[in-house]
Amino acid sequence: MVTGHVFIATSLDGFISTADGGIEWLIRRDDPNEDHGYNDFIKDIDGLIMGRGTYEKAISFESWQYTIPVLVMSRTLKSKDIPISLKDKIQIVDYSPIDLMRSLDAKGWRKVYVDGGQVIQSFLRDNLIADMVITTAPVLLGAGRSLFGALSSETSLTHIKTTTFPSGLVQSKYRVGGK
Amino acid sequence: MVTGHVFIATSLDGFISTADGGIEWLIRRDDPNEDHGYNDFIKDIDGLIMGRGTYEKAISFESWQYTIPVLVMSRTLKSKDIPISLKDKIQIVDYSPIDLMRSLDAKGWRKVYVDGGQVIQSFLRDNLIADMVITTAPVLLGAGRSLFGALSSETSLTHIKTTTFPSGLVQSKYRVGGK
Repeated sequence: MVTGHVFIATSLDGFISTADGGIEWLIRRDDPNEDHGYNDFIKDIDGLIMGRGTYEKAISFESWQYTIPVLVMSRTLKSKDIPISLKDKIQIVDYSPIDLMRSLDAKGWRKVYVDGGQVIQSFLRDNLIADMVITTAPVLLGAGRSLFGALSSETSLTHIKTTTFPSGLVQSKYRVGGK
Repeated sequence: MVTGHVFIATSLDGFISTADGGIEWLIRRDDPNEDHGYNDFIKDIDGLIMGRGTYEKAISFESWQYTIPVLVMSRTLKSKDIPISLKDKIQIVDYSPIDLMRSLDAKGWRKVYVDGGQVIQSFLRDNLIADMVITTAPVLLGAGRSLFGALSSETSLTHIKTTTFPSGLVQSKYRVGGK
């Protein structure tokens, strides 16, 4: 079965953006000369699943930053809403997480990048995430969009490794599930 | 001026206990043979400030676990509520965080241990915390009592060091304030 993988940055108090989607607090603390492993992470990923919030942030930037196929989970967006220049890069899907993963599995996909708080939370609830790489920035935001949300039960993780960077970023990788 | 210091454990999703104060999820993932640095942390601490929630949890255990003076911040608890055997170890205080710190400073205290979610949050809001040692357990609880809360503005931290343990605990120390 195709597996979901998370690679995301958060404030120490667990926010992935400010309430209006801003990530200036992260960009300011990032050091572009540090290799945080994104290229290594992305190289065997078949595609990226995101929610409408992350999609709208992504199309607000000057250029489209993803080189892999992007699936946007939305009940309201339609294919005609996608800018013409991005039609071959983005697909709108209206499936539940499990049905989406089954359809990707049938297409032969093996690993998908799952991005955005709401989407990560729904995939965790359905036990569709295999591992998570979480990069913590040295800041408390005090408010914003949360990385994690409610779960019906405790979810054990296994710590794989932690890397620290001179910028102050701390990156931990966890496998979802007990030892 | 006397400074506040945090030494606390949290789930990866930022909870310091379940909704009813339970920390079985932490005890189960702890390894008593690992040295997580508590004794080193406590050795130059003059006393411990906690809230009513942490106090009630602490007196529910068979024996009192603190060797340093404990101050319980509460508007409702009275001295007569303290068990007689603990009268010389615990003091109830009804000050604001800043007034409490001023009174401790006047007594010659230099470093206080600030414990419990609500108390840590109020001391952070008043900029009374110098540094924080946060130990993250490899688990998502999905609900519970939060370590961090609302802040009126972004608070910069400086990453000091991170230590990982075979148990899966990851411990990071941050100084409060920018570089």
